[in-house]
Amino acid sequence: MKTNLHSRSFHNGRAARPLSRRERHSAAVRQRLFDAAMRLFAERGFTETTVEDITNAADVGKGTFFNYFPSKEELLTAFGDLRIGKIRAGLEEVERGKEPIVEILRRLFIRLGEDPGRSPELARSMLLTMLSKDAVRLKFCTRFAQGHVIMTKIFKIAQERGEVRSDVDAADLARSYKESYLGSLLAWSLTPSTRLAPSFQRAFEHFWSAAAAKHSRIEKKGSER
Amino acid sequence: MKTNLHSRSFHNGRAARPLSRRERHSAAVRQRLFDAAMRLFAERGFTETTVEDITNAADVGKGTFFNYFPSKEELLTAFGDLRIGKIRAGLEEVERGKEPIVEILRRLFIRLGEDPGRSPELARSMLLTMLSKDAVRLKFCTRFAQGHVIMTKIFKIAQERGEVRSDVDAADLARSYKESYLGSLLAWSLTPSTRLAPSFQRAFEHFWSAAAAKHSRIEKKGSER
Repeated sequence: MKTNLHSRSFHNGRAARPLSRRERHSAAVRQRLFDAAMRLFAERGFTETTVEDITNAADVGKGTFFNYFPSKEELLTAFGDLRIGKIRAGLEEVERGKEPIVEILRRLFIRLGEDPGRSPELARSMLLTMLSKDAVRLKFCTRFAQGHVIMTKIFKIAQERGEVRSDVDAADLARSYKESYLGSLLAWSLTPSTRLAPSFQRAFEHFWSAAAAKHSRIEKKGSER
Repeated sequence: MKTNLHSRSFHNGRAARPLSRRERHSAAVRQRLFDAAMRLFAERGFTETTVEDITNAADVGKGTFFNYFPSKEELLTAFGDLRIGKIRAGLEEVERGKEPIVEILRRLFIRLGEDPGRSPELARSMLLTMLSKDAVRLKFCTRFAQGHVIMTKIFKIAQERGEVRSDVDAADLARSYKESYLGSLLAWSLTPSTRLAPSFQRAFEHFWSAAAAKHSRIEKKGSER
């Protein structure tokens, strides 16, 4: 699935006014640079990919890159923004209330894995970049914090609807959801002989087993400290 | 808690014959290098720590380092071996059968976090080193595979004793355990404002909620696909 940097959910869910021709051109170039970069990061890793490699692959002049992204690292924060967009779209689905929240959470889990999951190299590149540079890490932390607020909202609604256990804080459920995701992404990126999809499915089902509403009643017995 | 490179559980659980004076000296130097390195990695990160920094801090000649570790990276694989030792000790506790397996699993989860959890910088350094160099990563993968075999044994025994759900493969429970651990370590290392211990406790309780035996009976209702 192609990642659209300019989708509605990417931009805070605001409906966009129609773009001018210049804006459309600009959006298209940005998207081309982004796609080329993700492809290259996935193939050869973040460090081994130069800005010139990206502009060559996107067929634009080297200087052009910096009109769109202040740095190579910034591409990964755009990536982080995309994830926020997906989480926000998940909240919108929950608010519409047309299907069980478990289905929305499961789909979101898989969707969040789609981009880093293009290749183990890309997943490792993303994790590496997050871990290595303080400046980039702090940007990711901001995204994580934003994502956490939205996920907590989702779990609060799920608790109100009785679909998720209510004896655990919604914020803690959001943390466990994020950590299940990060843990399975990290494990997969390290030992890529395993396939991503079944790994993610197992991780989600495990998460859900612990999060589902049934626990509220039998919790005391099963998870005493 | 101090990490002992030469503890029984570190060496495949074999009881060691008494060491000669020379061997004791050698073991002590190796331990000093290891402790100094972990302290420095925790303080300033893996990349920023040189072998000379380590030998200075351990008060041994620079050349001496390479009698004990082939490279700086090798220190982190020694770290990986330590973790295997802890997991093996967990299996021994389970086999002794003197306490509920949940207690052993919870203690092991916390113990596995002790070393990387000395500081977010150390945790990030470890994860970075795992992710960045193929040679090191493959060594870690070997450790992960060893750890996985032992953890699977633990979960099989737990299933036989009816302490853990038996409608999910023991190997899959072992994977979810590992991923809960890795996910909470990664999340903590990225946003160190959170405290490690409560984070790890929450992660373990979430894991356990999904793993406990009660699921076997009510599973169909709660986690249909």
